Amino acid sequence: MKTDIEIAQETKMLPIKDVAAQYGISEDDLELYGKYKAKISNELWNEVRERPDGKLVLVTAINPTPAGEGKTTTSIGLAQALTKAGKKTMLALREPSLGPCFGIKGGAAGGGYAQVVPMEDLNLHFTGDFHAITTANNLLAALLDNHIQQGNALGIDTRQILWKRCLDMNDRALRNIVIGLGAKADGVVREDHFVITVASEIMAILCLATDMDDLKERLGRIVVAYNFAGEPVTAKDLHAVGSMAALLKDALKPNLIQTLEHSGALVHGGPFANIAHGCNSVMATRTALKLSDITVTEAGFGADLGAEKFFDIKCRKAGLKPDAVVLVATVRALKYNGGVPKDQLSTENLEALKKGIVNLEKHIENIQKYQVPVVVTLNSFLTDTPAEYEFIKNFCEERGCEFALSEVWAKGGDGGMELAEKVLKTLETKESHFKPLYEDSLGIAEKIETIAKEIYGAGSVSYSPAAKKAIAKITDMGFSELPVCMAKTQYSLSDDQTKLGRPEGFELTVRDVYVSAGAGFVVALTGAIMTMPGLPKKPAADSIDVDENGKITGLF
Amino acid sequence: MKTDIEIAQETKMLPIKDVAAQYGISEDDLELYGKYKAKISNELWNEVRERPDGKLVLVTAINPTPAGEGKTTTSIGLAQALTKAGKKTMLALREPSLGPCFGIKGGAAGGGYAQVVPMEDLNLHFTGDFHAITTANNLLAALLDNHIQQGNALGIDTRQILWKRCLDMNDRALRNIVIGLGAKADGVVREDHFVITVASEIMAILCLATDMDDLKERLGRIVVAYNFAGEPVTAKDLHAVGSMAALLKDALKPNLIQTLEHSGALVHGGPFANIAHGCNSVMATRTALKLSDITVTEAGFGADLGAEKFFDIKCRKAGLKPDAVVLVATVRALKYNGGVPKDQLSTENLEALKKGIVNLEKHIENIQKYQVPVVVTLNSFLTDTPAEYEFIKNFCEERGCEFALSEVWAKGGDGGMELAEKVLKTLETKESHFKPLYEDSLGIAEKIETIAKEIYGAGSVSYSPAAKKAIAKITDMGFSELPVCMAKTQYSLSDDQTKLGRPEGFELTVRDVYVSAGAGFVVALTGAIMTMPGLPKKPAADSIDVDENGKITGLF
Repeated sequence: MKTDIEIAQETKMLPIKDVAAQYGISEDDLELYGKYKAKISNELWNEVRERPDGKLVLVTAINPTPAGEGKTTTSIGLAQALTKAGKKTMLALREPSLGPCFGIKGGAAGGGYAQVVPMEDLNLHFTGDFHAITTANNLLAALLDNHIQQGNALGIDTRQILWKRCLDMNDRALRNIVIGLGAKADGVVREDHFVITVASEIMAILCLATDMDDLKERLGRIVVAYNFAGEPVTAKDLHAVGSMAALLKDALKPNLIQTLEHSGALVHGGPFANIAHGCNSVMATRTALKLSDITVTEAGFGADLGAEKFFDIKCRKAGLKPDAVVLVATVRALKYNGGVPKDQLSTENLEALKKGIVNLEKHIENIQKYQVPVVVTLNSFLTDTPAEYEFIKNFCEERGCEFALSEVWAKGGDGGMELAEKVLKTLETKESHFKPLYEDSLGIAEKIETIAKEIYGAGSVSYSPAAKKAIAKITDMGFSELPVCMAKTQYSLSDDQTKLGRPEGFELTVRDVYVSAGAGFVVALTGAIMTMPGLPKKPAADSIDVDENGKITGLF
Repeated sequence: MKTDIEIAQETKMLPIKDVAAQYGISEDDLELYGKYKAKISNELWNEVRERPDGKLVLVTAINPTPAGEGKTTTSIGLAQALTKAGKKTMLALREPSLGPCFGIKGGAAGGGYAQVVPMEDLNLHFTGDFHAITTANNLLAALLDNHIQQGNALGIDTRQILWKRCLDMNDRALRNIVIGLGAKADGVVREDHFVITVASEIMAILCLATDMDDLKERLGRIVVAYNFAGEPVTAKDLHAVGSMAALLKDALKPNLIQTLEHSGALVHGGPFANIAHGCNSVMATRTALKLSDITVTEAGFGADLGAEKFFDIKCRKAGLKPDAVVLVATVRALKYNGGVPKDQLSTENLEALKKGIVNLEKHIENIQKYQVPVVVTLNSFLTDTPAEYEFIKNFCEERGCEFALSEVWAKGGDGGMELAEKVLKTLETKESHFKPLYEDSLGIAEKIETIAKEIYGAGSVSYSPAAKKAIAKITDMGFSELPVCMAKTQYSLSDDQTKLGRPEGFELTVRDVYVSAGAGFVVALTGAIMTMPGLPKKPAADSIDVDENGKITGLF
């Protein structure tokens, strides 16, 4: 069996200008990065902004399991199939982080015969967006520490610095560090932390910004620290905005690549789905909507985190109206949710399936609360049985959802025709009446409780003293109108990753709350949230190589 | 008066494919990064490698002073003038670091009417080479710390770790840090240090590598630490080579941009000129030699560091034969060397000039030791007087050098015609019999003493106990055949930056010695060497901005 990278490298790509031409993008509106990657010029948006939007389809999933669901693969395969079905379709996806590439998870270009290419470039530096974000993040940190070193006119309290440095790397040794050691010229000693670049607020800002002016406004609002009087100190106070924006000038432009079957994919931005909103950029999604009949996009983690934030943060703030949701599940993952151990998922087990399908049920109900039609798709495995399929199909149809099997991993677009058909039928026959879950005017605690009870199925929410104090302070600072970005384990609907299926009536514990004023949301932390992953005992980096002709192997 | 960035932005650039066509580079051999930047494909080298080389001209300077000499500006202006004179000329230059851009020194794209463009792109992320180097450097660091965390099978002694993390940023607070704090999962506590990316050994390696295979060999040889038995642990031992090479795959390809007058410039690599060799990449210089009649290149700092390392490290190792050297001076800098304070350099002062010109004299003598013909050029200032010019001209001609005034800053190529003429005359009438200063077989201490006495004018060399021990260890490890890379202040021929002019008979103190086994040289440190600069009280970052159309201001 061929590996993903082998399939990708065997594909004859179209020159990206030919892919662009399919969507009416002229060469003048492209900034080429080699022959197969391009950025979209700022001018294109002005040319197309008055056009009507195409349809917007979100691909999301049940809670992730070790078995894997294949959300990105399904998104890409669906776009390939819709293209085959004669619809002008464009993907709007996230860029992968280098951390997991060299760590344990691998890249994020889809899989099998449903991939975007060139996958090596996408998984490595791509067009440099993440490096630009890393640099802007660390310039702000350097300016902050330099301000303190040079006399600290703003009275920054080094015990209350919020801004962290970042690297696009899994590097646990940088989680907790002490900086500024040495002599007088070597800075002021303080505790500091590195996060992975995708966890930087600048990543979230880039993805929510609508243009350069909006980007600069948002950068200026970043709260980097509190001063000795307890007042916020912002990036604007540090005169960091112009320089950061200059560093982000090109990163702000969406990137165009193609699927294995030459549909266009705008791959742009990739904020963490825990402490940030986990969606590709607003600019990419908006542009795709203007250039295509159907835009297929996805959001990080399961629907309780990904879809909720897509709806309540991205769509709310960008004024987007999703027309349909594709909810990805696998037979294996549903059985896992029904209590089957990881090594017995290949055996038919209708009892376990019946027990585990409540996870899917809850996600269907949740999406229906946003009044967006749902199509459920099963990413098929060789070990699945007809009886299992039949059971799931009936279950979904009883709940008013279309159902389709997907074999895009093995067959590309051809394996997604049934799914494409059901998506098209849904778009044609069911209207979306999308509305966010809660009003802006609700208080921070009320927003958290609404999400916890309505989406997660919690019975109550408890707050640590720190969280209570933080909510009061953030409300005082005037940020209570912002949406809430929940940081919660992705493995369960609850805040306890061992609770599979459909937990009910549990108490959700909010440990801390802080504001990402630039991104424009309030983060509520439940449990310990990892913002700097580590490398495993045998990192993927061990097996990656490149030959004398520049051909890369071992990337997955 | 227009600023550099205003002049650059007013220039109508040629599409880079048209610039390439002037040198017989087809579009197939270009990987475009937008319309005005391109990388040269790996295939081009194979097409041109059997061609004869054009002429190689090094631009170097007297010891730098606060008055500024304008080496890059002269290099670019000379290339513009040679092109005007009908010679197919190509520049081979270093890429600038982001650190000085946001700090104090500004960018490195030349100045006035002698610049390479697009200067904003070059000074910001350019084609991502430095980001790739940063990432490869930090991947090696992460793999190193992860190896220790995961059981330390190689027995790495955390008190003897040599490898440092890096960022392309002036960030003094990261000079000395403690990492790995927190819980068991957060790594092993140890002291660590960040250097600026241009000080990374990977930068030096990239610049000295001749192809991908050579790059990988060199990466594998990097000594990252010693184990508990005192034996070296290399990047190869950590299985880091393939991944690092994959990250550097595109960074290894030279970048093509253009001068304001559309000559080609291969701008590639930028190692520090103190702890590394301060020259652009071997691959860029070699390629330029195959594509042009004359290649103009430069080396960092004054000729005592820049030219010495260009000759004894780069030319020796890459088998390059320089045909002429252009030595840049200014009347102001010569007077400064003669003891005139910075604020009185605008007044004619022949006595001071006579006293300070010994600095130029020593550099002329030094280059003549390598048996390469010298052309001295004065980068002209409005305040210079005819008498001063006359004195310097006679001084040079008495020493067998051509002399030319250069007005390229104010007039571009037109201002460099006299210099171009003298360079052409030298290339036609004087033969280079280039030979390095010392043999490979000389011991490390003997190499240091040869450079110190022959080039710097030292009377003797003293070694700290640590340096003596290190030389013995490095010799034991089998590295004594490597050339020596001196780390010394650039402001004086001696190791004391206050000794201007032509100090003689001083004792040079070697504080420490270490091997950069991947780069292929032994570094001898004299005095404290800065590998992570800091930001000034008012950083350049304060004034940089970008408008809604992506137009950048304040970069210089």
